[in-house]
Amino acid sequence: MPKPLHFFFDFASTYSYVAALRIEAECARAAVPLVFRPFVLGALFSEQLGISDSPFNVHPVRGRYMWRDLERLCARYRLPWKRPSAFPRHSVAAARLACAAEGEPWQGELVRAFFRANFAADREIAEEPVLTALLAELGQAAAPLLARATAPEVRARLRANTDEARALGVFGAPNFVVEGELFFGQDRLADALEWAGR
Amino acid sequence: MPKPLHFFFDFASTYSYVAALRIEAECARAAVPLVFRPFVLGALFSEQLGISDSPFNVHPVRGRYMWRDLERLCARYRLPWKRPSAFPRHSVAAARLACAAEGEPWQGELVRAFFRANFAADREIAEEPVLTALLAELGQAAAPLLARATAPEVRARLRANTDEARALGVFGAPNFVVEGELFFGQDRLADALEWAGR
Repeated sequence: MPKPLHFFFDFASTYSYVAALRIEAECARAAVPLVFRPFVLGALFSEQLGISDSPFNVHPVRGRYMWRDLERLCARYRLPWKRPSAFPRHSVAAARLACAAEGEPWQGELVRAFFRANFAADREIAEEPVLTALLAELGQAAAPLLARATAPEVRARLRANTDEARALGVFGAPNFVVEGELFFGQDRLADALEWAGR
Repeated sequence: MPKPLHFFFDFASTYSYVAALRIEAECARAAVPLVFRPFVLGALFSEQLGISDSPFNVHPVRGRYMWRDLERLCARYRLPWKRPSAFPRHSVAAARLACAAEGEPWQGELVRAFFRANFAADREIAEEPVLTALLAELGQAAAPLLARATAPEVRARLRANTDEARALGVFGAPNFVVEGELFFGQDRLADALEWAGR
């Protein structure tokens, strides 16, 4: 019986995009239950590195590599890709919506739609009109979900995800966690799936 | 006709160990010519990050993950592993010897022996008696090779590798480079081999 795989991601994170677009299909293929765990990566960067920006901006050599690598990875996995005109985008509103969609059969679709908006369509996912339009495109009534997304229990859920990420030793994104075992980086999805099936 | 794969590594780097022990067999299987390119990673850390230590020591959260991950990776690939009592070890002397062995059919063996000494046997590869013993274990006369390793052209070769790494946008290790295309991280070896065969 495969163990569930917890996918810790941030909508601002480029490598999370690659993982997010592939993960539901890969988990289904391996018969591994998937749990979406949006968290606030910026909080960890701020605590651990004392920065309020992406390390890819703070360290331009790493940034240069990442942008080229993303292009290459998206070509490899046949994912749409457009380098966003703003990076990193504020992702807390989108993350709260993903938390508010927990338990819904369309949660995975919402996650992929928000990621594609940021990294394939260059849309400003920090802005409520954009999020409203994206929910409409998914066939969901935006108003009740937007209201739910700022309810105390949903805010608390996102905080709890970030707290758990911190406790697990997370320092970047994406991460795959199986029974407390942390795998960091989109290129480790296969390892995490193998771990889940052991 | 596959293009050559240039393997940029540092004997002090844990993830380089995992790559180094696998790379010759993987390249042979893919019929990709392999070129060993030892370089001085510490010089790039110093320039780019202003640190004179490993980022895994400077950022303990990353370090904790790396040590656990190495254990896991070595189990996965059935590589011997013993967490070294000193990290990172000074690797310039070992790197010069690897440069001095360029063109020798036993260069790959030397590279693996030095890496195993550091990460499986916890031997101090910065010390000449250890290097001498390792060369003897390889069946090589140590004295002429140690002399060659400090010759100006060998020092220059190591400097040239580091300069090329810098120019390629390297910021860590290991790296796989195919026709100027940089792949960073041991988990990207398969991607680099695929690129070499395109």
